[in-house]
Amino acid sequence: MKNYIDLSDISDLEKLISESLKLKAENSAAETGKGKTLGMLFFNPSLRTRLSTEKAARLLGMEVMVMNADKDGWALEFEDGAIMDSTKAEHIKEAAAVLSQYCDVIAVRAFPGLIDKHKDESEQVMNSFRKYASVPVINLESATGHPLQALTDAITITELNKKSKPKVVLTWAPHPKALPQSVANSFVSMMKKMNVDLVIANPDGYDLNPEITGETPVMNDQKKALENADFVYVKNWSSYDQYGKILYTKESWTLNNEKLKQTNNAKVMHCLPVRRNVVIADEVLDGENSVVIQEAGNRTYAAQAVLKALLENK
Amino acid sequence: MKNYIDLSDISDLEKLISESLKLKAENSAAETGKGKTLGMLFFNPSLRTRLSTEKAARLLGMEVMVMNADKDGWALEFEDGAIMDSTKAEHIKEAAAVLSQYCDVIAVRAFPGLIDKHKDESEQVMNSFRKYASVPVINLESATGHPLQALTDAITITELNKKSKPKVVLTWAPHPKALPQSVANSFVSMMKKMNVDLVIANPDGYDLNPEITGETPVMNDQKKALENADFVYVKNWSSYDQYGKILYTKESWTLNNEKLKQTNNAKVMHCLPVRRNVVIADEVLDGENSVVIQEAGNRTYAAQAVLKALLENK
Amino acid sequence: MKNYIDLSDISDLEKLISESLKLKAENSAAETGKGKTLGMLFFNPSLRTRLSTEKAARLLGMEVMVMNADKDGWALEFEDGAIMDSTKAEHIKEAAAVLSQYCDVIAVRAFPGLIDKHKDESEQVMNSFRKYASVPVINLESATGHPLQALTDAITITELNKKSKPKVVLTWAPHPKALPQSVANSFVSMMKKMNVDLVIANPDGYDLNPEITGETPVMNDQKKALENADFVYVKNWSSYDQYGKILYTKESWTLNNEKLKQTNNAKVMHCLPVRRNVVIADEVLDGENSVVIQEAGNRTYAAQAVLKALLENK
Repeated sequence: MKNYIDLSDISDLEKLISESLKLKAENSAAETGKGKTLGMLFFNPSLRTRLSTEKAARLLGMEVMVMNADKDGWALEFEDGAIMDSTKAEHIKEAAAVLSQYCDVIAVRAFPGLIDKHKDESEQVMNSFRKYASVPVINLESATGHPLQALTDAITITELNKKSKPKVVLTWAPHPKALPQSVANSFVSMMKKMNVDLVIANPDGYDLNPEITGETPVMNDQKKALENADFVYVKNWSSYDQYGKILYTKESWTLNNEKLKQTNNAKVMHCLPVRRNVVIADEVLDGENSVVIQEAGNRTYAAQAVLKALLENK
Repeated sequence: MKNYIDLSDISDLEKLISESLKLKAENSAAETGKGKTLGMLFFNPSLRTRLSTEKAARLLGMEVMVMNADKDGWALEFEDGAIMDSTKAEHIKEAAAVLSQYCDVIAVRAFPGLIDKHKDESEQVMNSFRKYASVPVINLESATGHPLQALTDAITITELNKKSKPKVVLTWAPHPKALPQSVANSFVSMMKKMNVDLVIANPDGYDLNPEITGETPVMNDQKKALENADFVYVKNWSSYDQYGKILYTKESWTLNNEKLKQTNNAKVMHCLPVRRNVVIADEVLDGENSVVIQEAGNRTYAAQAVLKALLENK
Repeated sequence: MKNYIDLSDISDLEKLISESLKLKAENSAAETGKGKTLGMLFFNPSLRTRLSTEKAARLLGMEVMVMNADKDGWALEFEDGAIMDSTKAEHIKEAAAVLSQYCDVIAVRAFPGLIDKHKDESEQVMNSFRKYASVPVINLESATGHPLQALTDAITITELNKKSKPKVVLTWAPHPKALPQSVANSFVSMMKKMNVDLVIANPDGYDLNPEITGETPVMNDQKKALENADFVYVKNWSSYDQYGKILYTKESWTLNNEKLKQTNNAKVMHCLPVRRNVVIADEVLDGENSVVIQEAGNRTYAAQAVLKALLENK
């Protein structure tokens, strides 16, 4: 791999998944990363992504340098040709080129503004790093995607799946804040690469970007969608159509045990952090169907496999 | 040891102290921590604790990941059964379980609010980690205790003591801000485990929690309390009775050379940071009786001994 | 070397430069730093300095502990004899002494206030660390100097120079914010130690401290100053005379290709971050004369040479 910015950067998904599972089974330090440095740049908060990626890098023998971009350093300018007389002290051209000299891999998190759809979809931060960095770039969640999470989800489903073609339901859930579509987008894109029967359930007005969902069936009846599901992936997102808006809350969409009865004793997944009793009920998260902790644990091995592939340029 | 959250977690104090002093004498890297990761989570500022614990972990060969909990990550919910529709994005149940997968030991600092005594005494943060983490937890100072500091103090007294049963005086001192009782609490509990003659001196209204002080003599006359002291431990704390309040300032309680004359040429201790000329006079801190720097240096070895004991599960 | 606080700490500049270039050529981990710890303390933001110094330390095998001084820790008091009843929780006397026990080298960044010239020139922060730390101290940019940047610049000029005595022009450039004189000061001091023909160009009222510039020719005509230059070092600084003030903006002083024509096809240098199209035009930064990225890359080797010299006490 050259970068890991979106799922199109994956050349061989099956290999990447099996590599992750191998790394998990070994759980030992490789030598691949010895003498190499990962630089992590956060424009937004992070717990799992920060720690699992740092852990992954260290398991490979890499050094890790972490920066909270705007707090520890300088505000960055991304516009080409800007006359930089405002508050932004450094242009991405210099920042990316300089970081490329201190780091062997650069990992970046930059959430969307959720106001200007066109701007968010241009993926300015991620694409600027892609353009101006001379080392591989990893997406730690960007305006429209979260490919490390998607790889983790693919790994977790591979681990747990017992069928030739399991039914996977991605269901919207309520949330008090307007959230990005990035996790849902990458999950859909990833599932389309796997041998699963994917169904999306969301209320009217919450359809994801049709260019991403494509032919995937979308149902407004959550109960019906959940029928016979083997995996239920729960996630909130704000409206794509009325971009970044919460149209209405649908408390009835909270996943609870009653709804799980519709499924084929489905495994319940979520990327975390999860709002208990809003997105998913306590009874589900504390019950036997939940695999959210195992899923979070797999973040390490997804990141490790990606870092290894980037360092080996395979 | 299984955890190091309060002093009751210590099974063999003498061994822990001698282990610390051995580690200090060797000052060399052990292999105990190789391939292991310490995660440090700060809900409050820290200088000594942060750096000495990080240093200790690295001396053991461990990797260290540091997070400023609320700034770098998500605000955490600690209430069981909460409907999480407010600003708190993640429940401690998930956070602790997930961190347990990335870290081999979790260390947490969480100060008290000093408003609701009952809430502070419930030690919600520390006990939640104890409950939901599957790896050992270290207290980096909590609402009511600072056991790493107390171990440091035990080590320092052991190093410097020349008597079979030295007189140790814990004396309150003035301070412009309302401070927790945690350092004083743990110091008293630790001294009660050691072969010393402990006396507490504080103004009327500043008595510590009687469940902690127990039979320890408490004197309102600082001068009298200091008579023949071999060690003077200076520390401010806010009122326990009128919880978290500064009742009045007592400038006359600042420790100075005049007062030291009452003592048996006592060693002067303080956990730092110390307000010069408010808590302790310059002449004392810059004089020969002060051992505060040596004491701070011992923080490393206390943390190292605790980490080693946790990793070896001894 | 004992410290690296200002350029007077350098005993043998030529050796330090050649050591840097040797480290750059080798680009391999030395054993010098094994078991040693670098503590970095930031009172101000940093990107290059933070990451290049951390990288340098790790290349030497050192452990690195980073603190954002005021955000992660306690506000420090620097006044001798202060009665510490305000917001400052810890005196530099304790902080420096304690850090000296956890770290083998301490590196500190502390910008000037640009209000009180006398106070800034006293270099209180840096000199307090020099006085109270018992381990070597590195200046990561202080009130009046940036000696790591100056060493980097010396290395870069040494690498690129083709003449026995090149002409080096330090030219002021406009900037929307009032900036310190520190980079310019250290650059001038460094150039005076090297075999170059140094000329300073700045508008009237922007003369640097005459004690630093000494006999160096200062011209108010930028175009004339640039004639036949082999190296052009571009940098903004606020007025030294009307201390810390922006007297007027001089947009005509932005370095562009038109002006470069005056030079001997000069290499263009800047310490970064650079305000594009304010300090230097896009056409220069994106053109062949710019060496700013190479220069930033050399920060690592300058820091590595300094750390090595400090650790070896040479």
